[in-house]
Amino acid sequence: MSTFGTHFRVTTYGESHCLSVGCIVDGCPPGMALTEDDIQPQMTRRRPGQSAITTPRNEKDRVEIQSGTEFGITLGTPIGLRVMNENQRKQDYGNKTMDLYPRPSHADWTYLEKYGVKASSGGGRSSARETIGRVAAGAIAEKYLREAYGIEIVAFTASIGQEFLFPPTPTHPTAATNPEFLKMIQTIDRKTVDNFLPVRCPNKEGSERMEQLVADFKAREDSIGGTVTCVIRNCPSGLGEPCFDKLEATLAHAMLSIPATKGFEIGSGFGGCQVPGSIHNDPFIKAPAVPPGQNGASSQVPRPRLTTKTNNSGGIQGGISNGAPIYFTVGFKPPATIGQAQTTATYDEEEGVLEAKGRHDPCVVPRAVPIVESMAALVVMDAVLAQQARQTARSLLSPLKGIVPVQQVQQGV
Amino acid sequence: MSTFGTHFRVTTYGESHCLSVGCIVDGCPPGMALTEDDIQPQMTRRRPGQSAITTPRNEKDRVEIQSGTEFGITLGTPIGLRVMNENQRKQDYGNKTMDLYPRPSHADWTYLEKYGVKASSGGGRSSARETIGRVAAGAIAEKYLREAYGIEIVAFTASIGQEFLFPPTPTHPTAATNPEFLKMIQTIDRKTVDNFLPVRCPNKEGSERMEQLVADFKAREDSIGGTVTCVIRNCPSGLGEPCFDKLEATLAHAMLSIPATKGFEIGSGFGGCQVPGSIHNDPFIKAPAVPPGQNGASSQVPRPRLTTKTNNSGGIQGGISNGAPIYFTVGFKPPATIGQAQTTATYDEEEGVLEAKGRHDPCVVPRAVPIVESMAALVVMDAVLAQQARQTARSLLSPLKGIVPVQQVQQGV
Amino acid sequence: MSTFGTHFRVTTYGESHCLSVGCIVDGCPPGMALTEDDIQPQMTRRRPGQSAITTPRNEKDRVEIQSGTEFGITLGTPIGLRVMNENQRKQDYGNKTMDLYPRPSHADWTYLEKYGVKASSGGGRSSARETIGRVAAGAIAEKYLREAYGIEIVAFTASIGQEFLFPPTPTHPTAATNPEFLKMIQTIDRKTVDNFLPVRCPNKEGSERMEQLVADFKAREDSIGGTVTCVIRNCPSGLGEPCFDKLEATLAHAMLSIPATKGFEIGSGFGGCQVPGSIHNDPFIKAPAVPPGQNGASSQVPRPRLTTKTNNSGGIQGGISNGAPIYFTVGFKPPATIGQAQTTATYDEEEGVLEAKGRHDPCVVPRAVPIVESMAALVVMDAVLAQQARQTARSLLSPLKGIVPVQQVQQGV
Amino acid sequence: MSTFGTHFRVTTYGESHCLSVGCIVDGCPPGMALTEDDIQPQMTRRRPGQSAITTPRNEKDRVEIQSGTEFGITLGTPIGLRVMNENQRKQDYGNKTMDLYPRPSHADWTYLEKYGVKASSGGGRSSARETIGRVAAGAIAEKYLREAYGIEIVAFTASIGQEFLFPPTPTHPTAATNPEFLKMIQTIDRKTVDNFLPVRCPNKEGSERMEQLVADFKAREDSIGGTVTCVIRNCPSGLGEPCFDKLEATLAHAMLSIPATKGFEIGSGFGGCQVPGSIHNDPFIKAPAVPPGQNGASSQVPRPRLTTKTNNSGGIQGGISNGAPIYFTVGFKPPATIGQAQTTATYDEEEGVLEAKGRHDPCVVPRAVPIVESMAALVVMDAVLAQQARQTARSLLSPLKGIVPVQQVQQGV
Repeated sequence: MSTFGTHFRVTTYGESHCLSVGCIVDGCPPGMALTEDDIQPQMTRRRPGQSAITTPRNEKDRVEIQSGTEFGITLGTPIGLRVMNENQRKQDYGNKTMDLYPRPSHADWTYLEKYGVKASSGGGRSSARETIGRVAAGAIAEKYLREAYGIEIVAFTASIGQEFLFPPTPTHPTAATNPEFLKMIQTIDRKTVDNFLPVRCPNKEGSERMEQLVADFKAREDSIGGTVTCVIRNCPSGLGEPCFDKLEATLAHAMLSIPATKGFEIGSGFGGCQVPGSIHNDPFIKAPAVPPGQNGASSQVPRPRLTTKTNNSGGIQGGISNGAPIYFTVGFKPPATIGQAQTTATYDEEEGVLEAKGRHDPCVVPRAVPIVESMAALVVMDAVLAQQARQTARSLLSPLKGIVPVQQVQQGV
Repeated sequence: MSTFGTHFRVTTYGESHCLSVGCIVDGCPPGMALTEDDIQPQMTRRRPGQSAITTPRNEKDRVEIQSGTEFGITLGTPIGLRVMNENQRKQDYGNKTMDLYPRPSHADWTYLEKYGVKASSGGGRSSARETIGRVAAGAIAEKYLREAYGIEIVAFTASIGQEFLFPPTPTHPTAATNPEFLKMIQTIDRKTVDNFLPVRCPNKEGSERMEQLVADFKAREDSIGGTVTCVIRNCPSGLGEPCFDKLEATLAHAMLSIPATKGFEIGSGFGGCQVPGSIHNDPFIKAPAVPPGQNGASSQVPRPRLTTKTNNSGGIQGGISNGAPIYFTVGFKPPATIGQAQTTATYDEEEGVLEAKGRHDPCVVPRAVPIVESMAALVVMDAVLAQQARQTARSLLSPLKGIVPVQQVQQGV
Repeated sequence: MSTFGTHFRVTTYGESHCLSVGCIVDGCPPGMALTEDDIQPQMTRRRPGQSAITTPRNEKDRVEIQSGTEFGITLGTPIGLRVMNENQRKQDYGNKTMDLYPRPSHADWTYLEKYGVKASSGGGRSSARETIGRVAAGAIAEKYLREAYGIEIVAFTASIGQEFLFPPTPTHPTAATNPEFLKMIQTIDRKTVDNFLPVRCPNKEGSERMEQLVADFKAREDSIGGTVTCVIRNCPSGLGEPCFDKLEATLAHAMLSIPATKGFEIGSGFGGCQVPGSIHNDPFIKAPAVPPGQNGASSQVPRPRLTTKTNNSGGIQGGISNGAPIYFTVGFKPPATIGQAQTTATYDEEEGVLEAKGRHDPCVVPRAVPIVESMAALVVMDAVLAQQARQTARSLLSPLKGIVPVQQVQQGV
Repeated sequence: MSTFGTHFRVTTYGESHCLSVGCIVDGCPPGMALTEDDIQPQMTRRRPGQSAITTPRNEKDRVEIQSGTEFGITLGTPIGLRVMNENQRKQDYGNKTMDLYPRPSHADWTYLEKYGVKASSGGGRSSARETIGRVAAGAIAEKYLREAYGIEIVAFTASIGQEFLFPPTPTHPTAATNPEFLKMIQTIDRKTVDNFLPVRCPNKEGSERMEQLVADFKAREDSIGGTVTCVIRNCPSGLGEPCFDKLEATLAHAMLSIPATKGFEIGSGFGGCQVPGSIHNDPFIKAPAVPPGQNGASSQVPRPRLTTKTNNSGGIQGGISNGAPIYFTVGFKPPATIGQAQTTATYDEEEGVLEAKGRHDPCVVPRAVPIVESMAALVVMDAVLAQQARQTARSLLSPLKGIVPVQQVQQGV
């Protein structure tokens, strides 16, 4: 369905050729300052047309709050959000050839199989434009997480084609065991990432190589994929619901729901499956003391007393966050729409050659960065509300005495 | 929460030290023949103790149907399933040292952070024993899918450590572009996979190398991870719900909810992100005619008219199945419990050395095979019921005339 | 939350003083003709200002489809619906006295207790304006139900104050045992009901008495409640999900979610609790043959072979529809906002006198009629889709042989 | 489906002729003392066979906790609960005549229409035995509510046939305006109610009249219905979720999901619809100070500063609890199974006479009392957890300054 989340519930609507796209956010805590200015920056980061290597369509994407706030404060009621579809350019998609062919590796054919109705845009909801609602909702979630816990969510391009920021090596089949990588994710921020536009890979040399690679693919009217790594810092411990809604499971769900994704790795990921347990295990150490309110958090929620020396777990153990940085990587395929001619079949099963006119994005990876951040925010927000509910419920019970070791619960989380 | 699925809804209970484990399956179609004999085989495949390389604990795991059937026929009401916990061996986990330390990369610490109560087993629901309910429910789903559509779900070990069945190469950064791989997944079945016990890698040489690797890790009281690839054949087209519940998103959710998983790839996966779009795109071709009832399907559901020449998409485009084989790979980390001594911290933040007594599994990959299959069955079952509902709903409307191209809907799917 | 339904899922947003109100309808079958013209009539029936006895505020309430249709055909994707808030008259609610007092029996106080934020409208989402989204969504559901099954949903005013259309008598403690009532609900339609505006009680004499009663209450700046009875005809059998989502349970949920409701009765209702079982039981009789396609239904779904001689069950037995007319009654309280002065307490706990200025509706019952119909449509739609899914799922299994009596399932429902 | 609740989620299984009945309770707060002894008393109160006027079948109904607790403390993980089906007496239902006829006003026919499979018990899940899981789960919810908030839930028989505890009068068309009634619900407890077994109407004279009435119906092999009123005291304010999950809406849903129910009224109910608004409105007054911990509550949650002078609202305004006693009434129909011969039709549409052998309950009302309490507990528990989550989420935000009046949120609720 078009709904994500249980406690912080986002329902989206809209395809590329209709009047507007948008969403309803249900479950936002009341009493939070919120205006369009809190949402627009990520909308703008998501927009195509930010540089030569992304598609030149200029979508203005101004978000408009319909409900749920008054005098710039959330009421706790559903927040309606809407963005007009202004620049539809139907002619790009509506030409005759396009009408005859389901585009290879696009959603045209499967949407028709599913719904039995052919939308003029092909696979209507499979458009990248559908992600607008997610990004708007994610910005609201992020605001809460930042304000209450000082949570920071930062994504960046980790590879394009075979150009990697941290290429796998025999010593480090996964970046997780590489101290350079662990150091970087401790400090990387969005400003730094955007300094490396258009590719958003925060490394001068790597960034240049990737930019060149994308330019080459553009030149031959081809396309290329890559990966985005995302880190979530200052997350409270205890997030994630056994057994089906482990935190990595809901993150994987969220990420694989982004168009064009091919894979998800938590922490050490697939490379970590090649590392011996004796190295892969993360030993516990006493955590450094963090004064409440650090990182801009308004809450007094204490940090966990233990942390791990290494972080192959990616901040999640047994499906539950341990307070260490959560990080994961998402793979994006090469865009299906390419300028090159392709031999394929028509809707009527006849072989023919399809040539896709129009201007196409040779690589979606840089533009996916804010979408990954937004989906991460939605997952963490939902998990935070679930865990707050549990902790508060428990705190109202009488303290237990006797046999079973029971940890004291901190107030209010 | 402990519930998976919307239309075919599975709710599980139980941890390793309680009276029993089990589940309730809600939404099973009425009128299907079902007894314990349909469920037990996968339960048995899941059991530890099948060979020298898995843990020797002999869990008998006899499943008992509590409700929802009569005279061996499903009533359409919830099916209660229960398996006793017979062989708890509390002494392995209850020793004094264990009580002092949260085990590294295990769920002991995070469960305590989450719930504030320390279960005697450490992370109670994080136990592999929790997967019993999933496997039992998955077997019911599979029975329906096989009977109605001839769907076959087969998983196998694809790698252990750095030993791969199809190692990535410069030509084939993903097995998806390798014709040998595509051929294998067309025919592989469970019987063949189990011929390669204990590792369940269906290749004589690869299997032997993996078996040796695991033996080596066992000898040094260490552990190692690996990957499982799973294929779903004869799936109808049209499965998967835009935009948040794309089929690969719910598969990813399902797989990452299995204990010890680190990653998920659909189709060409991460390797596919390195392949140019011009190669990665799957051109359409006319599908071969398949007489209804083939593959043992009792239904008359027709197969799609088009299929793809290649299958980098892994049978899913725009989040929706296209009828081609669906395949994906899941990564499993090295088991956290190892015999080697580990320097770590106690619950009270003091450094010390933990030695885990008892017999431990150096590699969970072979045993994960039926669990992966079961979770895949739950995902497909839920998606099938959703799509059946849509198709039937549509079929009751008057046929549309005029402008919009509308495909005829086949009866009953 | 602000979401209703599982298969046909409606999420609403908006309060009385924000930019717009609206909803997202997810799960509408694809391929159905749908434009604003299908939705507007019920929106207009819901509008205040249709006669002297309802509030004179002229809300125009033009609905606008944002997404989910193309060329007037549903795509199967979420349908966004929006209605602007044009005529807010903030001054009525924004005066100083109003700001000091939580209005008695209104939602001002409880919204503040719940959210900790005071919206300028008092209880923002408790406004009758919130029902706009429901009515818009209900109109879409109704269109499907009518087209696929010939389902007719008609509500009417059954009582205002102590003026009843069918007053309870010692012989008939419930209208359900009164043949006149059963006859009326077989044929009553919306056109007839609206002939009796402003009260919508389809009986000349009763209507006049009720109209006079409301005028009396208006004259003394007081208010009065009443009841609405609703009938659903041509409903398929088999709707309603044991055990928690019995059809009467979801109807009750839906009706009690309408602002100002106080009670719900299915079939013979509370009066039926006073009737002996020997009279209350509905004996089965052979059902009259109904040719497919009658009632304008496009589907070929057969009607049940049995029906009941009486209908104290109100068309639902064991929580499941039996094909007979479903009928129920909903109670609405006297509106809380009255012109009379009321002694009450301020937010600061001080006693004082509140006088509510502005023009108020002395009785909401007539205007509630289309809202009751809309919520009924949402419930039935959701139940229909659930049952269609089950029936289709079952129809794809091999027919069973032998011991258990198994009914043949009709194709496609 | 067979699941109730969002945060405190109960999934039940079992019909009358299978191996066992039971449920899984997901979302119980961790760290609460819980053993079978906390659950059994309500199970026993629910049992038939407690007196001459209820059915003599002696169901032992011993509940057994399967999981989710250790050393008598909840772990926060799902609690599995099971009760064996010991005394099935298949012969009562399995006779030949019964097999030919769907019993009038029973679920036999609709279950067959729904599922297409005829269970040997007729409508399998419609059996009163299905309520065992609800009562077990409700007892757990109650324990939490009592311990954390001092919440008390007490139900009693309010009428049988036309014998009422508080008969409607011209002055008091609803008991809600009767001070005697309001006084009674302030203090009534379960012990007092059970002093009036077998009818559970806490009034000597009324109880005797009702007992005689039931005896009369039993003597003529007929049956009779009645009503149960339930009060919930010490409920926190702020419970209930606009707009679809208003507290009265979820209560109505819960109550109408109990077998044999015909209606639901909140507060003044249907009678209140006949009372002028000027009388019906509940003026606010300053609430009496209640020291924290009173009523045995372990929490420090403060009571609301305002309460209402009258309580026609039944403790709920705008769908949200205001802290005053919540009360409602549920109607139960005369049991469908009667000893008298009934002329009806067979499954094959032939007219005939059905005589139901066996011992039948002439009135389910007294036995419904603990079931109503249990469902009320489930509703309140779910609402409490939702509101705790909201309040905690809000408490972690920075306090707002300026224009909008913002109430201080109490810690921890």
